[in-house]
Order: sequence, then C-alpha cells, then structure tokens
Amino acid sequence: MDSFTLIIFGITGNLAQIKLIPALYDIEEKNLLPKETSIIGIARSPQSKEEFREYIKKVLTSENRHHQHAIKDEVFEKLFTRMHYLNGNLIDRNLYKKLSQFLSQLDSENKKLGNRIFYLATYPDLYDQIFQNLQSEKLNEQKNGWVRLMIEKPIGNDLKSAKDLNKLLLSYFREDQIYRLDHYLGKETLQNILAFRFGNGIFEPLLNKDHVDHIQITATEDFGIGKRGGYYDSVGALKDVGQNHLLQMLAFATMDAPTDYSDAALTKERVKILENLEVDPKNLVLGQYDGYLKEESVNPNSSTDTFFAFKTMIKNARFKGVPIYVRGGKKLSQTVTEISIIFKTPHNRLFKHLRSGTEPNVLIFRIQPNEGIVLKILVKKPGHRWELDPTYMQFCYRLGSDSHYFPDPYERLIFDAIKGDQTFFNNVEEVESEWKFIDPLAKSKTKVHSYNPGSWGPKEADQFIQKNGRYWLEPSMDFCAI
Amino acid sequence: MDSFTLIIFGITGNLAQIKLIPALYDIEEKNLLPKETSIIGIARSPQSKEEFREYIKKVLTSENRHHQHAIKDEVFEKLFTRMHYLNGNLIDRNLYKKLSQFLSQLDSENKKLGNRIFYLATYPDLYDQIFQNLQSEKLNEQKNGWVRLMIEKPIGNDLKSAKDLNKLLLSYFREDQIYRLDHYLGKETLQNILAFRFGNGIFEPLLNKDHVDHIQITATEDFGIGKRGGYYDSVGALKDVGQNHLLQMLAFATMDAPTDYSDAALTKERVKILENLEVDPKNLVLGQYDGYLKEESVNPNSSTDTFFAFKTMIKNARFKGVPIYVRGGKKLSQTVTEISIIFKTPHNRLFKHLRSGTEPNVLIFRIQPNEGIVLKILVKKPGHRWELDPTYMQFCYRLGSDSHYFPDPYERLIFDAIKGDQTFFNNVEEVESEWKFIDPLAKSKTKVHSYNPGSWGPKEADQFIQKNGRYWLEPSMDFCAI
Repeated sequence: MDSFTLIIFGITGNLAQIKLIPALYDIEEKNLLPKETSIIGIARSPQSKEEFREYIKKVLTSENRHHQHAIKDEVFEKLFTRMHYLNGNLIDRNLYKKLSQFLSQLDSENKKLGNRIFYLATYPDLYDQIFQNLQSEKLNEQKNGWVRLMIEKPIGNDLKSAKDLNKLLLSYFREDQIYRLDHYLGKETLQNILAFRFGNGIFEPLLNKDHVDHIQITATEDFGIGKRGGYYDSVGALKDVGQNHLLQMLAFATMDAPTDYSDAALTKERVKILENLEVDPKNLVLGQYDGYLKEESVNPNSSTDTFFAFKTMIKNARFKGVPIYVRGGKKLSQTVTEISIIFKTPHNRLFKHLRSGTEPNVLIFRIQPNEGIVLKILVKKPGHRWELDPTYMQFCYRLGSDSHYFPDPYERLIFDAIKGDQTFFNNVEEVESEWKFIDPLAKSKTKVHSYNPGSWGPKEADQFIQKNGRYWLEPSMDFCAI
Repeated sequence: MDSFTLIIFGITGNLAQIKLIPALYDIEEKNLLPKETSIIGIARSPQSKEEFREYIKKVLTSENRHHQHAIKDEVFEKLFTRMHYLNGNLIDRNLYKKLSQFLSQLDSENKKLGNRIFYLATYPDLYDQIFQNLQSEKLNEQKNGWVRLMIEKPIGNDLKSAKDLNKLLLSYFREDQIYRLDHYLGKETLQNILAFRFGNGIFEPLLNKDHVDHIQITATEDFGIGKRGGYYDSVGALKDVGQNHLLQMLAFATMDAPTDYSDAALTKERVKILENLEVDPKNLVLGQYDGYLKEESVNPNSSTDTFFAFKTMIKNARFKGVPIYVRGGKKLSQTVTEISIIFKTPHNRLFKHLRSGTEPNVLIFRIQPNEGIVLKILVKKPGHRWELDPTYMQFCYRLGSDSHYFPDPYERLIFDAIKGDQTFFNNVEEVESEWKFIDPLAKSKTKVHSYNPGSWGPKEADQFIQKNGRYWLEPSMDFCAI
C-alpha cells in the first residue's frame, strides 16, 4: 500500500473528535497504516505541539470515543509521531501556502510520492473557498501521486443544491477522486446483506414478487434531537435519514446481483434501484413529536418533520407490485434499524387451521441493535397436540466466536479510502437519484401530524399501511439478545 | 376422550420397563388419561398386588427411566389405582378366559364401553397364538366399543415375512385397528420436519432438483451392539435401522405436501416416496467393525453388517437425478442422526474468488443430539477485508423458552393410539414398500468390508460417494450446543 499524507480540515471539530481521530487510532492499532504515513490536522487556533498532543490524547480517552477498550501508550505514541498541527483560517490563502510548503517538506523528508487525502470535516458552505485555495496552490492536482477528497453527507439539501455541489466538486476533482462518505455504507450489518444475498445460493430465488408480499424498512430512534435543533429544524427526518440511510438500505436489500464484485458493478446495481423507485406524495405521512417546538434552537412555529413514512415500489420485473414501506424518525417507541422482508403465505399451507398457521415468514436484516440476520418461521411446539410456535432461525454476530468486534464504519471507510476503494461511498448518480426520489416528497407540503413521544408515530401512519391490508411489524428484541 | 382399558402383554419385559410404564406415568402426570381408564399388565409369574406395586415403583425410579425429574407420589398413586396384574402363560387359553371375565367386570363396574387397547410387548413369534386366544374369547371383536392392537417393529425380517405378518394381523384386525409402532415416527424432531416444510412458505420452493444437489441421511452410533448380539447378529444394521428409521427420515424430508393434514393424506405421500425409490445393490456398501466377531452371542464367523451406506434416487419429477446417500451403523465416529440437504452452488456466485466462496448451503434437520434445524450459510466476516465465514442460522430447541421438555416418542405414540390417531404409525403399504426397497439390498450378497471402531466406516464408503464427486459431510456439533 502507498504511503500518503492525510490532511484533516477541522481537526478540533466534533466529527474529528468523535469519529476521525478514534478511527485513525483503531487503524494504527491494527498496524494497517503504511510506514511513512503522515497526518496533518488543521484548525484555527494556535496550538503548540505539546498542546496538540494533549488534545489528541484527551479525545482518545474521552467517553465519546468508540473504543471498547483502553488505549495503549505505544499505539498512541506511534500514531502521534505521524501527526502534525497547522493553524490558520480555512478561507485564508496563506494557510494553504504554509500547507503546501509543509507537504513538500514531508514528501522530501520521507521520500514519499505526493499521495494526499483531504478530509473536509467542516461545514459544506466552506467547501467552495477551500477548493479555490487548494487549487491556487495546485494542491488538488495529481502530480507525482494520487489526491483524494473525502466529504460527509449531507450532499446538498435538495436535488438542485446536490447537483450544484457535485458540479463544484467535479470542477476541482475527478469522480474517482471523490469519496462521499455516508457512514451507513460502512456498517458491517449493511455490507453483510451483500454477502448473505450473493454469497449464498438459497435466498436469491425467494427475493422476488412471486414470494415476497412486501418489504418494511425501519430506522427509528427513541430519543429526540438533543442539541442538534439548529441543524435538524432546517432539514427534518425525511432529509436527515430518509434521503440517505433508508434509501441505501432499500437498495442493498433489493438490488440485482452485480456482474462481478467491483465498485462499478455494485454501484451500478444500487443506482438502478434508486432510479426506478415510484414516488408519489400521496404515499407519504409526516409527523412531529409533541414537545418538539420547545426543543433548544427550534423555531416555535416549525412544521419540520421528526417522523416520516412512505410507500414506494420498484419499477422492475423482479419486484413489480411489491410495496416497500419505509419509516424513520425520532422520539419513537424503539431505537432500531432493520429491513424486514415479509413473504407470501402460500394458499396450500398445510396448517392453516392452527393458530399461527397463516403467519408469514419474515427475513429480517437487523442493522442494530441485536445485530444479525434472522428468519421468522413456524415450528411444531413440542408436545401432544399439534401446535405451531412462531420462532426464529438466527444468525447473530454476538454468538460468533471471533466476531464480537465490529470495526466502526469510519474506521472501515477511512481505510477503504486509503486503499482507493470507492465501493461503499456514494457516487454522483447515487446521490442525485436519492434526491430525485426525495425532492417531490420533501416539497409536497404534506400535512405534518403530531404524535406522542414513545409511540410509533402519528396514527395516520398506521392507517396508511392498513389501507393496503397490512400492518407495521413491531421490531422484536427476542432474537440475538446478548 | 373415551375411557378404555389398556392390556399390556409382557408387563415385566424390557420394553414395558424401559418405555411403556414410564410413558404411562408421563401421560398420567399430564392428566391426559380419561377418568375410568384401566391398565392390565400380564406376565407369567404370580405376583401379589403389593409385589406388583413394588415392581411398578421400582421401574419408575430406576435409572433406565426416561424422566428428567423425580416421580411424584400422588401421580404414582393415581396411576397405580388404575393398574391390575394378571398372571398366566400367553399361549394358554385359560389366561384369556380370566382376562375376558376381568374385562367384563371392569366394564360393568365403571360403566365403560368395551374400549380396549392390546399392547403386545412380546416376541413376534407369539403373536399368532395370542391372536388365536384373543379370538377364541372374542376379545378382538368390537362389540360395544373399539379394539386396537399395538405392536412394535420389526415387522418381519424380509418382504415375505412382513407380508405374512401383515396377513396374520389383518385376519384378526382391520387395518384401522392396527398400530405398528416405530418410535422414530414419534420423535419431535422428525415430526417437526413436516411443520417446518409445510407450515412455512419459503422452504418448499427450494426443495427440488433445481436447487438441491444431493441429500445425505445419517444415523450412526459410536457404541457397539452391547448385549443385543443374539438378535443383532441375525438382522444387521441395514435391516435394524435402514429398513425403518432411515427410510422414514428420507420420506419425511422429500415427500410432497399432503392435500390436508390427515393420517390418510400424510401416509399416502410418505408411501409415494417409498414406492418410488430406485434400488440397485451396486450402490450399496456394507461394513463390519473390527472386534464384532468377539462380541457376546455373535457367531464367530458372522458376516452380518454393522455398517451400511447406499445411494438411491426418487423416481419423480421433483427430485429426478438428485442422489440420496444414506448411512447408518455402530461403533462409528459419532452418535448422530440428521438429514442434510446440500444445495447447488449457483454459477454466478459473486464471491467465488474468496476462500469458502463456493461452499454450498446446507439445510440440516438434526434429529439428535443438539436438536434443531439449521442452515449452513456464508456471511461477511467483520473486518477490513472481504472474507466469508461459514456459519449457521439456527433454530434450536434448547434455546426455546418453554421447549426444553420433549415428550418421549412412546409417550407421544401411546397417547396417539388412545386418541385413535394413526398418523405416525406405519401402515401396511408403508412397511411393505420399505421392505420392497431393502430386500434386494439385504439379499445381494454384497461384500462386507471391515472398518476400525471410531471411524466413519470402511474406506469403500468414502470411495463410493467420491466416485460421484461428492463427500460425506462431517456432522457438526458447532450448532445448538447447550
């Protein structure tokens, strides 16, 4: 693997503290970094080397860290040896002059190629000026080595702004240099959907309109917006998680098998799904939890959605007519993320005369918590009478022998970017097809119904699915419990 | 449910001690016996009521009992209140006169109809004389109530003797009065195959030649013949378990869905499989473990098989060309009974470039031990690299909440007979179709190869399956462990 320099804009910000620095520690601990790798953190305030060292250490030992174990001194020392701090204003060209000189110095000292990753852990409204400054110092140019750019969701706030941002990105970088990070794509439980579906021969034959009655995708939280009111109130649930996480889950669960295991083939299949989703604002329900208007930094007259539910269908032969119900939001009954594939009940089911005898089979991809993949099935209850018991066939991560440790998605994705693997990043078509679907819903002026905190959203969301003779499944905590 | 009298011929024998009396206790404990039920035990030696009581108590408290818990005095008292002892010689007509008088007396005392179950826990060579004697007292006639006959496997020793025995049975009883008990059919794990296959919608579409590569059925024991040498040496493994248990398992795993849940419909489908099995002595391997000739009561020149393996196919459209490999025997590597359905590996499997990427999925019905139904699947091993891990999706009885207690098959089947439910008993066609398949194999003079105790049988059994590019699966104890 090539040595490189990672430049993090915003090293003292929230994202760097909570995700990036811990992820780098984890990668270092696994000895995955090439020897000559350097990391440059950039922020506004001056800091001495010793202050920077204390800052990094504090970040790694704070409770926010995503480690399961205490940090090791020798790993910390090895990591910090790679780290440098530059201070300056991100919109000031002088900072980039300093950066350019420092990069040249590092490259010559360490006989490295000019491989660079720029991680923009900043607000999107700074991107334009950062790119201009990078360009003025030719830092975005690939001269001797490669140059990659990492940015975070949100990519825009609607289809138009997403297109504008992509246009901006592509005026400074090529698509194969741009790593649009959505941490959901780095989740083991999401990626495992691909292994489960395409690494096994017995599930794909069932995943089509002949066998599937409908699909439900849920990503709910039992907590509110906390201190994110300012941002959240301008976005709402549908854009905050619907536009990205939930549509990604939908695509993973329903995409066709790619022709080979490559970024291009996988992304193509995901995009094919996203571009073929039926969208109709009549199939949307929005909600806002009681008490939301009194949250910190929220407009007291806000009509922002904290809950959404929509129905869509995929316009392809495989899933023609199979409804997909998607819901997400805050202050709901459970914190749970899962995809449930509800199978049809065959007409000739032998035990339909028994209680539970007509319950459908359900394949559940549980993203979190109680991570696993389980099949809800019926079995004979042991005993003298013929009774059927609903139960689960379970694959649970926590029952695996050496599978207890999940790398954090940021650890996975930063390492993917180091390797130059874009498979689990959003490309331009993917982001824009997501917005193409969400835009008509987000702009539909659909009424926002109120709901009780701790419920499953407004009653309209129940009526909406019951209209089709179906009901929301209550996510179960009966499987894969520790 | 009707009250009745159960008459056990051979109440002091092995079967009564190990299976029947404990099963009756268990049925009593669950309060399943109609109030006026009586039980008459018959054996040769005179016993006082008190001696009989001590005998029953001893049987119920001995280690051979199949109870998980200590017996309760009140249940024992309730059970023993129903019990009576008659002594006499089974071939002596006087015994039956005494029995007839006693039955009349019981019937009139308890205002019962003449419902009777005769359980012949004796050697089959006594059946003829017992029937003659029953008939001479008209005890086999259904006058006011019903009369049922229970007998045990083996039903004959080859096709001809089985036909003779069935003819004998049918000259005294109608088929709907005859309960041919094979305890395998009373096993929860075997019956659950029906619930699993026909109570769920997602497995049947996979169980056919398009998806199944082959099937393996294993029933092996790691111990030898013990004190059964006299009987075993005259029978051998193929007839001892192949003719009945293993063919039953085969039928449960491959039968078509019955038109309804009824004895007639279920048995019909089992028989359809058994009557359509290809049989060819060239596809048979026999073995005898080293040391067998020195076992107690074994002919020192015996060529009796203690191991067999055969290949068959089902002559129907559904499983055309799907090989079924069956093996069983004694002093083998493991004590395990299971059905493994090995699925085809699709050509387009996405991860075929990875280690394990071409491993087949396997559906395992584990009859014993580690009882359950599991799917061997591949999942993504958590971590930075894409690696596939073979693992299991498990339904395990022992993980169920109130599913710890399995009724013993005898308890299940005796209660079925009380209810008049013949579903899980062998009917005449079933027994004879089993013999029709086994006869040409058993009479084929196939060479008997020796094998090491603790192995998986003679090396010829491995070569035999490898000839078809397949191999015996090693039964796994990695799932459903307590």
